[in-house]
Amino acid sequence: MTSFSVGLLGHGTVGAAFHELLDSRANAIEAATGQRPEISGVLTRSRGAFDEILDGADLIVEVMGGLDPARDYVLRAMDAGRHVVTANKQLLSQHGDELWSCARENGVQLRFEAAVAGIVPVIRVLQETLAAAHVDRLHGIVNGTTNYILTRMAETGASYEDALADAQRLGYAEADPTEDVNGMDAAAKMAILARLAFNTPVHLDDVRYEGIEHLTGDDMAYAQELGLGLKLIGTAERIDAGVSVRVHPAFLYAAHPLASVSGPFNAVTIESQSITEITLSGPGAGGPQTASAVLGDVVSAMIPPASTPPTPARLPIVGDVESAFYLHLEVADRPGVLAQIAQLLGLQGASIRSVVQRGLGENARLVMVTHPILESRFYAAVDLIAGLDFMRARPRAIRVIDEEFV
Amino acid sequence: MTSFSVGLLGHGTVGAAFHELLDSRANAIEAATGQRPEISGVLTRSRGAFDEILDGADLIVEVMGGLDPARDYVLRAMDAGRHVVTANKQLLSQHGDELWSCARENGVQLRFEAAVAGIVPVIRVLQETLAAAHVDRLHGIVNGTTNYILTRMAETGASYEDALADAQRLGYAEADPTEDVNGMDAAAKMAILARLAFNTPVHLDDVRYEGIEHLTGDDMAYAQELGLGLKLIGTAERIDAGVSVRVHPAFLYAAHPLASVSGPFNAVTIESQSITEITLSGPGAGGPQTASAVLGDVVSAMIPPASTPPTPARLPIVGDVESAFYLHLEVADRPGVLAQIAQLLGLQGASIRSVVQRGLGENARLVMVTHPILESRFYAAVDLIAGLDFMRARPRAIRVIDEEFV
Repeated sequence: MTSFSVGLLGHGTVGAAFHELLDSRANAIEAATGQRPEISGVLTRSRGAFDEILDGADLIVEVMGGLDPARDYVLRAMDAGRHVVTANKQLLSQHGDELWSCARENGVQLRFEAAVAGIVPVIRVLQETLAAAHVDRLHGIVNGTTNYILTRMAETGASYEDALADAQRLGYAEADPTEDVNGMDAAAKMAILARLAFNTPVHLDDVRYEGIEHLTGDDMAYAQELGLGLKLIGTAERIDAGVSVRVHPAFLYAAHPLASVSGPFNAVTIESQSITEITLSGPGAGGPQTASAVLGDVVSAMIPPASTPPTPARLPIVGDVESAFYLHLEVADRPGVLAQIAQLLGLQGASIRSVVQRGLGENARLVMVTHPILESRFYAAVDLIAGLDFMRARPRAIRVIDEEFV
Repeated sequence: MTSFSVGLLGHGTVGAAFHELLDSRANAIEAATGQRPEISGVLTRSRGAFDEILDGADLIVEVMGGLDPARDYVLRAMDAGRHVVTANKQLLSQHGDELWSCARENGVQLRFEAAVAGIVPVIRVLQETLAAAHVDRLHGIVNGTTNYILTRMAETGASYEDALADAQRLGYAEADPTEDVNGMDAAAKMAILARLAFNTPVHLDDVRYEGIEHLTGDDMAYAQELGLGLKLIGTAERIDAGVSVRVHPAFLYAAHPLASVSGPFNAVTIESQSITEITLSGPGAGGPQTASAVLGDVVSAMIPPASTPPTPARLPIVGDVESAFYLHLEVADRPGVLAQIAQLLGLQGASIRSVVQRGLGENARLVMVTHPILESRFYAAVDLIAGLDFMRARPRAIRVIDEEFV
């Protein structure tokens, strides 16, 4: 019997679930690969020494999280000729260039399916199935916490605060949910996906992001009236010779494949002219799912030898992109208001796709959806509208994802 | 420059699309793999000689279809040490054991992503992402023709015949649609998926299948009333120590991930206790999509060396399985009818989940949905019900997929 030694860095929720899963699946993996995987060492805050674990391992699994010392350990493992499997999205999105260079130089594999969307195999599909495809665009729901909160708000009419509290009670949100709800977690994942989809370096700093903290039940109600669903959407797309990567709340038409993804699930839609689009969905996070993704990578590393991506070309990052928008305005109910707003939008090139107007005593509420327009031009119009004397509240704008391919 | 020679068997819709796609992506593939792929020979009915093409090729792509001579060519190519990429579901579902043995003996790769669900990467996900997972069940919409027809019937109220004619006009159904509409095409694909999911030999003959030819617009209308969608569903599942693989029309609750898959799209849901479930969806067939899947396999074969699945263990095929059922009865409208029907169902152990009764003059229509029950027992009850004197038409039964995991 040949054995395959796995050094495990980190033994929290994911690490412990991985350890247990590996033990329970060892027979099946030995049958499939001819080698029996075993945990040869475990590093936690209180026990284990990295150098010893490295010496005894054929492969290192890094599920400790954080940048330091994870970065150092992963680099040292690859310099020592070991394959590395990691679930660390922050590390990959902030030190990806250095890590992938190191893997290439040492001829080792760096695998990270678990870093994005848990068991949903978007990394493998981008690296292998679509290796020969020219990917035009990705849309993703890549943060389960925010998708749970938005689903809850839509289904029960709960406020953002109440839905967040529910998510925390059920374990879908951490005690400090900041990086989930402000979009940073999703931004890190989109940086990783964009790099693979377009074969260009993308750093977390290249990703613009907005969170869901400012969304209200009112936005949900209007969305339903307009036949739209509200999600936190990550987008990575080619624009001319560059790329744009961003995360923000966006409305989706009901026919969009991401519109029906609810609760803590994740999903990614990959668009390419040669394939139309494919959608991958499933549970986004959670210890067992992440552990299963890590183990899938370990098994892959046991079978074929190193295949590291080539040095990527650098595509420019595009800052200003086109979006359709939902615009929510509270105005005084007097003649000429809609005309004045439509004129300001029209001067910036925004055309209105649909509008709902509702009287509220002396005031009125206007909710409209525009056709796609450059974001800078749209926000210029909104700034002008905000200054009109009949406005009764700050205009609220949320992007709408148009379904162009189907 | 190193080149990588691809011998192409078949130059119909898929073959021609593959040829064109390979040429257009050759630069990108060379950048990614270090080798430039090129078509070194093409075999059609009227030109080319197989032996010459084999001699000049590093890899053989088989997209000619049919069993003969495709089987002979694929075996000879692997015996000669060539990797093979094929889109031939009939060949794999009827001669799979022989083909995989041959690949193992010769240490070559046999890849076939395009044989099931086109570009939707279900083969790769089962073989790689989930290599370490214990898959419990698969549900799939794996035939785009029937899904288009059923979508059309549901959305427009069209009859089966009219929807089929539409599908033929739009190119979603062939002039002779028999193998699509009777379920055999889907059965071949489910045999392939079941083999991979459970690592056991499954032959087309092991798969029970029913088609959609007998469905009526009326079934659709009741389905909508009950909040169900009607699809042609392939199921492969572990039952005790065996497996069951089958294809039949089935109702899905709206929350099921396959319920929203419409038009010619394909989708597969893979369930495993360690991962809950993942769903993969996208365009199922069509020349460009299938060609893209074939090219993805070619690129994968260019990068890593052979990894052939191990010899599988043989699990028993289970014939009788549990399903929930929709039962549609036309009866004389007189007292005691529902009680008598419920009694016959109850004697077989079927309990009723919901029922809709509607008067039609002297007759009435009863539409009910049961909880899961062994199919043999349900059909025994239906046979008894069919013999009751108040029955006005043959009972109609259609399976309902229950959502057990979410």
